[in-house]
Amino acid sequence: MTGASGVSARSNVDPFIVMDVMEQARRLEDAGRSVIHMEVGQPGTPAPQIARDGLAAAMADGALGYTVALGLPDLRAKIADLYRRWYGVDLDPNRVVVTAGSSAAFLLAFTALFDAGDRVGLGLPGYPSYRQILKALSLQPVGIPTQAANRFQPVASELPDLAGLIVASPSNPTGTMLDRKAMSLLIDNCHARGTAFISDEIYHGLHHDAPAVTALEVSDDVYVINSFSKYFSMTGWRIGWMVVPESHVRTIERLAQNMFICAPHASQIAALHAMDAEDELEANRAVYARNRALMLDGLPAAGFDRIAPPDGAFYIYADVSHLTDDSVKFASEVLEKAGVAITPGLDFDPDRGAGTLRFSYARATADIEEGLARLKTFMAAR
Amino acid sequence: MTGASGVSARSNVDPFIVMDVMEQARRLEDAGRSVIHMEVGQPGTPAPQIARDGLAAAMADGALGYTVALGLPDLRAKIADLYRRWYGVDLDPNRVVVTAGSSAAFLLAFTALFDAGDRVGLGLPGYPSYRQILKALSLQPVGIPTQAANRFQPVASELPDLAGLIVASPSNPTGTMLDRKAMSLLIDNCHARGTAFISDEIYHGLHHDAPAVTALEVSDDVYVINSFSKYFSMTGWRIGWMVVPESHVRTIERLAQNMFICAPHASQIAALHAMDAEDELEANRAVYARNRALMLDGLPAAGFDRIAPPDGAFYIYADVSHLTDDSVKFASEVLEKAGVAITPGLDFDPDRGAGTLRFSYARATADIEEGLARLKTFMAAR
Repeated sequence: MTGASGVSARSNVDPFIVMDVMEQARRLEDAGRSVIHMEVGQPGTPAPQIARDGLAAAMADGALGYTVALGLPDLRAKIADLYRRWYGVDLDPNRVVVTAGSSAAFLLAFTALFDAGDRVGLGLPGYPSYRQILKALSLQPVGIPTQAANRFQPVASELPDLAGLIVASPSNPTGTMLDRKAMSLLIDNCHARGTAFISDEIYHGLHHDAPAVTALEVSDDVYVINSFSKYFSMTGWRIGWMVVPESHVRTIERLAQNMFICAPHASQIAALHAMDAEDELEANRAVYARNRALMLDGLPAAGFDRIAPPDGAFYIYADVSHLTDDSVKFASEVLEKAGVAITPGLDFDPDRGAGTLRFSYARATADIEEGLARLKTFMAAR
Repeated sequence: MTGASGVSARSNVDPFIVMDVMEQARRLEDAGRSVIHMEVGQPGTPAPQIARDGLAAAMADGALGYTVALGLPDLRAKIADLYRRWYGVDLDPNRVVVTAGSSAAFLLAFTALFDAGDRVGLGLPGYPSYRQILKALSLQPVGIPTQAANRFQPVASELPDLAGLIVASPSNPTGTMLDRKAMSLLIDNCHARGTAFISDEIYHGLHHDAPAVTALEVSDDVYVINSFSKYFSMTGWRIGWMVVPESHVRTIERLAQNMFICAPHASQIAALHAMDAEDELEANRAVYARNRALMLDGLPAAGFDRIAPPDGAFYIYADVSHLTDDSVKFASEVLEKAGVAITPGLDFDPDRGAGTLRFSYARATADIEEGLARLKTFMAAR
């Protein structure tokens, strides 16, 4: 115990800046103000109806005790089959590990691959928890600044020496993707240098034109992490999966037995049924497509014109460095005056994020229209 | 990556030996044999009916998205109130952290309290995952051999130098408890030496005579870990809680936001309702009381007479060193010949466990009666 007041040094992770936005939004709403939520990273829709119906039936039938650590065999088989349907990849279900969301998958992957002190790279801007989980596990996060010209993705020729590299395609916060060539170059470079490759594919299924490339199209010697949270609209259920090299399955199984015992049984059953809800899920996706089109028109019209059109997910990342050098203060002002909650970029990029914002369009289209109108009025009066 | 075939050194945790027993049992059952399951560490009963009904209603109503990281405020308040009802302890709900089972609580506690290389003590025999989770987090588990004369609990005067100490009362695998005096001596000793104190209270509620003592009766400067898995009969739901010192709440909140986002929302709702199911849960407990009485008669009658009567939980730990020096082989023989699955002690005590067995009486009374009859026949013919 080397930290302050009896806590460890590694537990001193950064707070989420967006939490302050959410708290400010809550106070405004408690005071009767209307707030449009463009800060949230989750769908407004519930788990698919047949997922909830399936669980209700299962709850009446069985005890829902522990499952085996790697997950219900039927669910693992169905996830493997998704790789055939979505990507044409033939995947052995024994390589599929059902996890308590992508969060548990990161804990398992980082523990299985890295020892204390190892350096693990990740693109900036990126999902903030990569850095914080790495730190909590006594690993060294190495931020790799990315550029809009490279779709905000790391470039193979510029990688430093690393024990591992995490990529996310589509990315949070940018929604931009790696194409197959860029993914191949990164994986080849990592393999040549003994760097473990982890591909966060949590936004797969939520693409706009071409579908996202999975790292498994390129190599079997990768960790692929995915979740039922986004496309399957099941954030709060904490259910996801990971695909690992065949030679790592036993290691992951032992870690999962001890660290988690199993993913939530009820969520596993709901997830199993959710995979049959294609109509409902594709209807959700059509809403995102409509919202994205509105955002790509409305944000520039409001004055947020430095944006990279996203290839997927439900985010738009805007450069607002010509408008502010303090994105936290700017977001707070937008929330206070316009009633629109947005996320300051500092959560995703501790340096350049002072001049960026993330807009989420995961909610209902009427909210997006109202939010854009408010932003336009706010910016015109500014 | 310093381990074999690309995995880390810290991921090289021990396999659960009981998994081989369960696999052998599965093969026997697939071949048509009847197996009595005395190896399992979970109730055979489902979550309480009103918990399942409450979740079914909630699923029809809301999206069940992410909750705040520390858990639903109503659930935290109700857990705090449990300390008043069960122990007469006045507990601030802000100190209650809802977790994805006790597993997630251990990950949070160990990360918040210890840095890589720290030595953390635990009694042997004990829950095997303590050691493996510590190892996976680059910590050093320090096994402390305990004696039947001390109710298989560590003794304050014999503690080595440690960054932290984990105790479990009632213990798994022995079901034995620390009384208030022994608990106080351990906590005082730890505080005097700057050792963090973690109390695993997952079997609270399942006591036979006097209720178990919570560490919170002695001090606020402790971590207390509990779960809905055992008394509340909700193993597969992966829902539990932790009580931490007030000054640690913000650290735990940040870690939980990043490492887990939140505990499963559906399980939180089910847990909230489960706390109103006292009649059903006390009926379960009455079954354990009946089973325990049968075991305390039947095991000695069969020849397993070196046992410490358990104060709680649903286990009996037997010294069988006069019968075998290979508990794995012995358990396999019992399973093969008598059709009773039991857990070899090596999972709980890597040294002395070669001469011990754990019997679980968590299942229906008819199973216990049949299992004891089979054990008696087996031992008589041996």
